[in-house]
Amino acid sequence: MTDAIIPPASSSLSEGEIPHSKPLSKEGISPTSSNGEISPTPPSSNEKIPTLSKLVMGGFNDQYYMARALRLAERGLWSTDPNPRVGCVLVRDGEIVGEGWHQAAGEPHAEIHALQMAKEKAAGATCYVTLEPCCHYGRTPPCTDALIKAAVGRVVVAITDPNPLVSSKGIEQLLKAGITVDTGVLSHEAEQLNPGFLMRMRENRPYIRCKLAMSLDGRTAMASGESQWITSTEARSDVQCLRARSSAIMTGAGTVLADDPRLSVRVDELPCQLQPDKQVTIKQPLRVIIDTHLSMPVDARMLSLPGQTVIFTASNSETLKSMLEKAGAHVISVPSRDQAVDLQAVCQRLAEEYEVNEVHMETGATLSGAMLRAGLIDEVVIYMAPILMGNKARGLFNLPDIERLNQHIPLDIVEIRAVGNDWRITAHPINTR
Amino acid sequence: MTDAIIPPASSSLSEGEIPHSKPLSKEGISPTSSNGEISPTPPSSNEKIPTLSKLVMGGFNDQYYMARALRLAERGLWSTDPNPRVGCVLVRDGEIVGEGWHQAAGEPHAEIHALQMAKEKAAGATCYVTLEPCCHYGRTPPCTDALIKAAVGRVVVAITDPNPLVSSKGIEQLLKAGITVDTGVLSHEAEQLNPGFLMRMRENRPYIRCKLAMSLDGRTAMASGESQWITSTEARSDVQCLRARSSAIMTGAGTVLADDPRLSVRVDELPCQLQPDKQVTIKQPLRVIIDTHLSMPVDARMLSLPGQTVIFTASNSETLKSMLEKAGAHVISVPSRDQAVDLQAVCQRLAEEYEVNEVHMETGATLSGAMLRAGLIDEVVIYMAPILMGNKARGLFNLPDIERLNQHIPLDIVEIRAVGNDWRITAHPINTR
Repeated sequence: MTDAIIPPASSSLSEGEIPHSKPLSKEGISPTSSNGEISPTPPSSNEKIPTLSKLVMGGFNDQYYMARALRLAERGLWSTDPNPRVGCVLVRDGEIVGEGWHQAAGEPHAEIHALQMAKEKAAGATCYVTLEPCCHYGRTPPCTDALIKAAVGRVVVAITDPNPLVSSKGIEQLLKAGITVDTGVLSHEAEQLNPGFLMRMRENRPYIRCKLAMSLDGRTAMASGESQWITSTEARSDVQCLRARSSAIMTGAGTVLADDPRLSVRVDELPCQLQPDKQVTIKQPLRVIIDTHLSMPVDARMLSLPGQTVIFTASNSETLKSMLEKAGAHVISVPSRDQAVDLQAVCQRLAEEYEVNEVHMETGATLSGAMLRAGLIDEVVIYMAPILMGNKARGLFNLPDIERLNQHIPLDIVEIRAVGNDWRITAHPINTR
Repeated sequence: MTDAIIPPASSSLSEGEIPHSKPLSKEGISPTSSNGEISPTPPSSNEKIPTLSKLVMGGFNDQYYMARALRLAERGLWSTDPNPRVGCVLVRDGEIVGEGWHQAAGEPHAEIHALQMAKEKAAGATCYVTLEPCCHYGRTPPCTDALIKAAVGRVVVAITDPNPLVSSKGIEQLLKAGITVDTGVLSHEAEQLNPGFLMRMRENRPYIRCKLAMSLDGRTAMASGESQWITSTEARSDVQCLRARSSAIMTGAGTVLADDPRLSVRVDELPCQLQPDKQVTIKQPLRVIIDTHLSMPVDARMLSLPGQTVIFTASNSETLKSMLEKAGAHVISVPSRDQAVDLQAVCQRLAEEYEVNEVHMETGATLSGAMLRAGLIDEVVIYMAPILMGNKARGLFNLPDIERLNQHIPLDIVEIRAVGNDWRITAHPINTR
């Protein structure tokens, strides 16, 4: 498995085709960047991924087909929630005989789409699938049964499913049926594709991405709070892609009071070529407000928008609670910790009660600092504008307990990329708790 | 001139040679980056620049030879001060018959080195030179005379010399002698090579580069002032290259009081392969202290080091002045502006009295903010460490007059590059005064 070599780009370029590459945004961002990170730019579901001819394919291998399955899986980036994004490719005698991806919860899984396409050619084929096939009755019947029934010869799996209902049991069933199973092909890339689903299954909390917009000197807003339009149209459009892939958008009550945000995916601000058909309604992410004292106004704009708003509070005021519930919000009381809402408890409940995979955070320095300190931020996405705002302006993270330099929070910066006139920095805090 | 095409890299690579490219640092930084900026990494003077065979050279042109002359000129990056860095290539019948670069003030100019190498082959040759040849007696005799005497057939000049003693007069003399002269070949690159010399000649002030080290959240030091080792060894080594190319290193008295810095080029911290021979003494840049009230301590470490320290003050205290002069500093009184030293006046005097081309600034937020606001910072070089320090920590620029977002200072970010574990951001403030 591991000695296989990914075909060099030049061999495909000489054929006039670029497999696994398609123009996706104004900046030409492709969803899988060079470092294997899944970019915030989503896939287009009606575009054909070019294939290589059989001749050129000689010597290609498991990684090639798994990469294709991953590309197919990415097409569900905005729609599979709360399910994982999964892609599948069926190959017989060096020919792709079937492929598919999971599109939405309740609809067939990727394997089923691929089997339907392959029909009788599935017999003896190798099945490449980005996540271990399910073996249980959920919203749909088990995929393992379908693969066994179709008599595939071999199944190659990128990663096992940490879902306790599946977790290696799918592979066991295939093996029992005499099917060869290999795992671990492009497992890193497969992990990147479903950070939220995997985090929820493994840690019982969502994957949390904190989006910030700052000046070159690390300022998010003027001292007055003024912060609109720090970054370019392209950056704001890119942010809509991040929102679209998220199960929930989180902010604090302070931001609601200051900005009255919509916390929605604004379809008309998505990159033009990614805007869905007018008939298609994008499912709006759950809106999550952290509001220790229930200071959220009942006339907040988001409460009149489609979709659901949930407020987490440490307040016991039944009056405030019922007023907000009457206005359309769902209010959940959680324990307090350090005079604020217990953020660990919030995250646990988002995973358990709302099946939230990825959370998109856009908030002020207080909540972002508290989330960071609680070790709950998994990814920081900073849009850096080429401006200086000066030391009076507001910063990114309130971290009041950092007194000495050696108490700093280290990060792993995985990407810096131009987006319009701004720069997008993607980093993962290294948890040193 | 302008319809010429730079030979594609592939044609030379296929010969197994990479003209105009040499490994210069641990990160593989080459002195001319892809955007034409001159990087802080200096040239090695004893390395041979490979040439292309005559056969391959067919179809090559003015830009090829000028690029070579620029690479030669870069070898003087650390040593020509206060003179400009200049390179020269002599070509006859498609063959390089002579080449050279200016090494130090008082030593022969680039053209003379090239003519000495070419001897009689200079007759009828084309001379490529990165700056207009001088026509006056300075520290050495005029180069125009030497070129005319050697009977070169044509001179190609990247940029004219803004030095009022030369300024197009060199070209006129060549033309009068019947020599064809062409100008403007790779002029942008030639400008980048000598930003300080050109600024001094044109604007009567140095080119000022402000170096900063910050966390990802834009913080330079803890609230206590603690700031050592924010960035990596590689970044600090890179900074020594920036210092080495500068005529002066500037800071404020506050930084002297807090850190007692040496403000010197630390030869043993330069990238290993760039450290000069043990016998070679690197000329230390002038140390410049901005000290409105003469609070600089007489026992400051820098005062006992080789090289010169000049203190600019608005104070009239003859006592303090004579104490500091006794300690070895040169104290210059300048007018005050807004209760501080008039920074415009300082810059003018650095150009006029000290022939300072490039200033390297490393200072706190007060002086860097004041210099920025005075429109005196031409380049900002920020080393960004992958850490978060929180909002209590100190910021980059005190800009007390920025109250509203539309008062921000725009920048042109020209490069973001990994240096060790850090990222180096190079930007030019866009002057909107």
